[in-house]
Order: sequence, then C-alpha cells, then structure tokens
Amino acid sequence: MSELFNSYYSQATHGPFQLFQLGDFGLEEGGTLHAGQLAYTTLGTLNADKTNAVLLPTWYSGTSKIMADVHVGPGRAIDPDRYFVIIANQLGNGLSSSPTNTPAPFNMARFPRIRIGDDVRAQHKLVTEQFGIERLELVCGGSMGAQQTYEWAVRYPDMVKRAAPLAGTAKNTPHDFLFVETLTEAITSDPAWHAGWYTDPHAVHLGLRRHARLWGVMGFCTEMFKQATWRELGFSSLEDFIVGFVEHYFLPMDPNNLLCMAWKWQRGDVSRHTDGDLAQALARITAKVFVLPIDEDMFFPPRDCEAEHKLIPNSEFRVLHSMYGHLGLFGLEPVYLQQIDQHLGELLALDV
Amino acid sequence: MSELFNSYYSQATHGPFQLFQLGDFGLEEGGTLHAGQLAYTTLGTLNADKTNAVLLPTWYSGTSKIMADVHVGPGRAIDPDRYFVIIANQLGNGLSSSPTNTPAPFNMARFPRIRIGDDVRAQHKLVTEQFGIERLELVCGGSMGAQQTYEWAVRYPDMVKRAAPLAGTAKNTPHDFLFVETLTEAITSDPAWHAGWYTDPHAVHLGLRRHARLWGVMGFCTEMFKQATWRELGFSSLEDFIVGFVEHYFLPMDPNNLLCMAWKWQRGDVSRHTDGDLAQALARITAKVFVLPIDEDMFFPPRDCEAEHKLIPNSEFRVLHSMYGHLGLFGLEPVYLQQIDQHLGELLALDV
Repeated sequence: MSELFNSYYSQATHGPFQLFQLGDFGLEEGGTLHAGQLAYTTLGTLNADKTNAVLLPTWYSGTSKIMADVHVGPGRAIDPDRYFVIIANQLGNGLSSSPTNTPAPFNMARFPRIRIGDDVRAQHKLVTEQFGIERLELVCGGSMGAQQTYEWAVRYPDMVKRAAPLAGTAKNTPHDFLFVETLTEAITSDPAWHAGWYTDPHAVHLGLRRHARLWGVMGFCTEMFKQATWRELGFSSLEDFIVGFVEHYFLPMDPNNLLCMAWKWQRGDVSRHTDGDLAQALARITAKVFVLPIDEDMFFPPRDCEAEHKLIPNSEFRVLHSMYGHLGLFGLEPVYLQQIDQHLGELLALDV
Repeated sequence: MSELFNSYYSQATHGPFQLFQLGDFGLEEGGTLHAGQLAYTTLGTLNADKTNAVLLPTWYSGTSKIMADVHVGPGRAIDPDRYFVIIANQLGNGLSSSPTNTPAPFNMARFPRIRIGDDVRAQHKLVTEQFGIERLELVCGGSMGAQQTYEWAVRYPDMVKRAAPLAGTAKNTPHDFLFVETLTEAITSDPAWHAGWYTDPHAVHLGLRRHARLWGVMGFCTEMFKQATWRELGFSSLEDFIVGFVEHYFLPMDPNNLLCMAWKWQRGDVSRHTDGDLAQALARITAKVFVLPIDEDMFFPPRDCEAEHKLIPNSEFRVLHSMYGHLGLFGLEPVYLQQIDQHLGELLALDV
C-alpha cells in the first residue's frame, strides 16, 4: 500500500464526493501533483445556460460536508433547487490530493508545497472543463475558503459575479502567520512526528492534541468561555469541552495533511499577482463583494477585514455575530445560520 | 549545592534586593515554605508616621527591577522623593523563595504549590513586621500584580487606601486559564523537561522557546503586528522580533519557576474568600480603585475588567492604550508611561 490508511478521509465520514482528474498539475512552488485529483461534491442541477453555479471552497481541515451542512439547503439562500452548488475540497484536506492519498515517493513528508493559487487553478479546471461554466453566480468560503474566494475574484475577475469571503483575509496577517506557526510547531515537536514519517498518524496524538488546544485558545473568543456557552453544545466543563469538542475534532486527522494546509494558509496573499501591492490586486476585483467578518474572531478581527474591504471597488462590509468567534463558521448557532442566509440572500438577489 | 545555579536570578541582573525572612510559612494549598524568603527592594524613605508607603507586586516572570523602571522615578506619579516604595517579588519568580533557590528536598519539581493569597500574606508580614506600616497609600501591579493588588484590597481592606490593578482581573477568566495551560504544556512537553528534574534549565530551551512563541501570539495584539510596530524596538523582521525579543526574554529563565507562577496565575481568584461569590468579595473593597485595563490586551479585554469594576464600590474604569497589548505593561512606549503617571497621579491626589 502506498499510503497509510486513515478511515477518517472516507466517504463514510464526509459523505459522497467525486474525483476530478487534474492530470500532472504544475504547482506555483515548482512541484507537480502527478495524477492529481480534486475531490468535489455538487448539489442541485446546472441549468441549460449554465448561469446558476455557486462555488464553495473549504477551510482548514474542513471538507465538502460541513460546507454543505452550514451553507446549503432547501429554503436557504443557497438553495439547491435554484442553484448548482459545487463544493471543492482544498488540496491537502485528505479528500483531494493530499499527503495521505498520494502514492510514494510524493507521499507524506514529500508531498509538494501547495499555494492558494494552486487550489483556485485546480477549481478553475473543474469548473470550466468538467462543467463548461463561464461565470459563477457566487464564490463563498470561510477562513482559508475566504482566501480562495479572494483569489478567485482577483485571478479570474470575469468569472466571479459575486463573492462572499467569510472570516478571512485576502492577504494573511503577520499575527495569523505567527499563530499558524505555533500550530505547526505543536505537531512537529511531538517526537512521534519523526520528521513526517510516522508509521501511524494516531501515534502523533500528543502533537495533535497540543495543536487542538491552541485552536481552543484562539479559535473561539474570551466571552464565549466567560459565559460558558459551550454548555449549549452539551459539555459539562471547560476541560470536557476542550477535549470533547476541540481535541475530538482534530485527533482523527493526519498530521501531514494539516501541515500542508497550514503552510498554505500562512502564505495566502492575492498581492502575489501584483508584486506585493495589495491595493492594486484588490482593485482588479469586478465582483460584487460582501466582506463578512465575525465580530469576535481572534484571527481576523473585523478591522483587518474592513481595511481590505476599503480597497475593493464594489464591496459592502457586514459584520456577523458569533459567540464562537472564528469557529462560528461551524454554524453552531441557529442565529449564525440566519445571518448567513440573510447576507448571502441579499447578495444573490442583487443584479450585478 | 542544593540548587541548580542560574545566573539570571541574581542582583547583577535584577539590581539590589533584600531578603525578608518568612520563617516556616504555611501555604494555602497545604505545603510550607521552610525558611521562606521574600525578596524586595525599596525606593525613597518611610516618613515618621508611616503614611507614605506604596506597594508594587510583580507580574509573571517579572522582578522588582522592571516594576521600578516602569512605574517609579523622580518627577513621576510614584516619586521616591515623596513615597516609600516597596516592590515585592512574587514567590516563585526566582528572587523570592522559588523552585530554583529552595534547598532539597523541596527544590525544583517538589517546590510546593503557591497561591496569590500566599504572596499577599507574605507581603503583609513584610509590610507590618519589617516596617510597621498600618496602611498603604497605594497598591499597584499589572497582570499577576493586578491579581495581588485585588487580593490585598479584598483580604486587608483597612490597609489599602488606593488600588490600581493594571491589565489584570480579580478572578482569572476561563480563557486565560486555558491559555496558561498551553504555556505550561509547551514546557512540560519538552523531553528535556524530565518531569521537572532537568540537570540544566537551559537544556529545556525548546520548551522555553515554544512557551515564548505562545506569548508572541497572545501577548501583543493583531494591530501591532500589522503595523510592524516592533520596528520601533530595533528589529528587522517579524522573526527577528519574535526570537530577539520574546524568546530572548524567556530563555534565561527557569522552567520550574515559570510553572510555579503559571499555576498560581491560573487560579487567582478573590472569590475564594466568599465561597465563590465574586460580587460579595469585591464589595469588601474599601479602597479607591482605578481599574486600568489595556485596550488591545488579548488576555484581559477591557470588558472583562469592566465587569469587575462594576462590582467594586468606589471604583473608576479607565482604559489605557498600548499598541503592545498586554505586554504594553513593559512600558515600551513613552505614551504608555505618560498614561501611567496621569492615572496614578490623579489617584494619589485624591483624598480618600
């Protein structure tokens, strides 16, 4: 067997998905995905003139399943009765080409470096070659999904009618870079990590638990812990919540997959298209954009998102409320889902 | 030799200090400091009727030196020409009784658990027995020093005329508890830690560096990194700053000392006096209190401090600005020192 078996990265866990063949796919950092694959799922039906497509990329560690659960449904803003929804799993997430599912010699620690731009180019191939879609009604994603959303709007402005980056930035911030560095180091400092050549991903559980706990500190917000809002999720104590929710979430994952995404996350930056000039990059956007930060987000405070919003020609700045901070993205509160539907509903209703 | 030698914990590094003998000092958690010592320094002269004393306790990892540097000076609010300033090093900080300077068998990993209340009782002995002071004009400290300040005001209300807790809370928050848990785990997960029985504290440098980097993420604020304010401190890049400032600061310290303080910090809580009723505890305060959070503090956001302020009978809520977030306490900006002088000057000028 060319890769380690990890039952977590399965259709049993993440629902059905298809694999789009990328072929030998050259990467921005110089590597190649040999016989690369993009895992995606669709909901709804593409109409005859191909004008009802919505694209949802995924966040760090997320897959198509949670994107569908949080953002798509009958009667919701992104209604599969009306839209053809394509959810594209980011490279490295364990469903698309990743350290875990790539055959040797490019497996595990030798999986090549991936950039947000690689994800978006792979998705562009899927959208154009598989479906013949020329323009997307909406691109919407949270966190690393927001990075991909911005990348789409800057790289392929003519193809993006509307964009809704949730809780993320077009150019990652130095503070967030530093935080993600601690996530990486939490895993790689586990002796069981063995420079990425562990014989069992679950042997790296102390590193994964440490990584999870750093998410616990930064992923929510101070007020959530103060009000012990985690009780709503059925936990009995702070420690019960941290182990039962945060550690539980990350423990089944593969360390190399997480690190592939972490490296990419740190370096998300649309100004790579314009020699580092962020204003010039964002000025390329022709989409109608709703910039949607979360008020209590400790990664991407609204002011950081607002600064980018001001550089986008046709943009509105709307702050979502979630007591769960950045991880409000998980849709843990009915009131969060209502806000998603309200804003995305308004955005989709706009003639652009 | 009964302890490991660490030249960092010396008068050469931290300036002159005296040792007050605590004798066999019983601790709240049940242990005893055998021949315990409280390291302190004084500035100025105690007047004849002993009515000009100011007490400054120290924060996590801090010593009397930085408290003097940031808060005391001729022409400043706390002017040693006018006030008799006692700076008391917290237990565990390496100058007062600590894992590093306590003889076997109570050294290193066997150093007993210390509570904020132990610090304050030890300081009470110093203030009353050594100096015969019955009332303090002001108690002022930042972060863990704020915890001690609140503890003083609740435990000995008749002895505290004025209190100025800076960037800290009377009862630690669950989020901060969780953060400090990651600090602890950063050190104890280093294989060189050896359950606290390392043969050289500097051998635990990877744990200390990891601990320092978590401070890097939470100790400042997102905006500081965005504006690259660290350039003002003479660093050339983000990494140069993180290594050259944050790692540099913590690397010479002793892991057991830091962990002793971390455990204490997590559990600071004046409501231990009132069966967990924080309102009842804070209602005991008779001092005039200025609650002084820092606007960009990621540990103790102003709203957490404001909630406590509202429970204190004679309190004012004043928010300090620092681009350095919680570590604004270090007095890295002239504008911060001006704010300290303004608020403490006003507080000391009040007839109470």
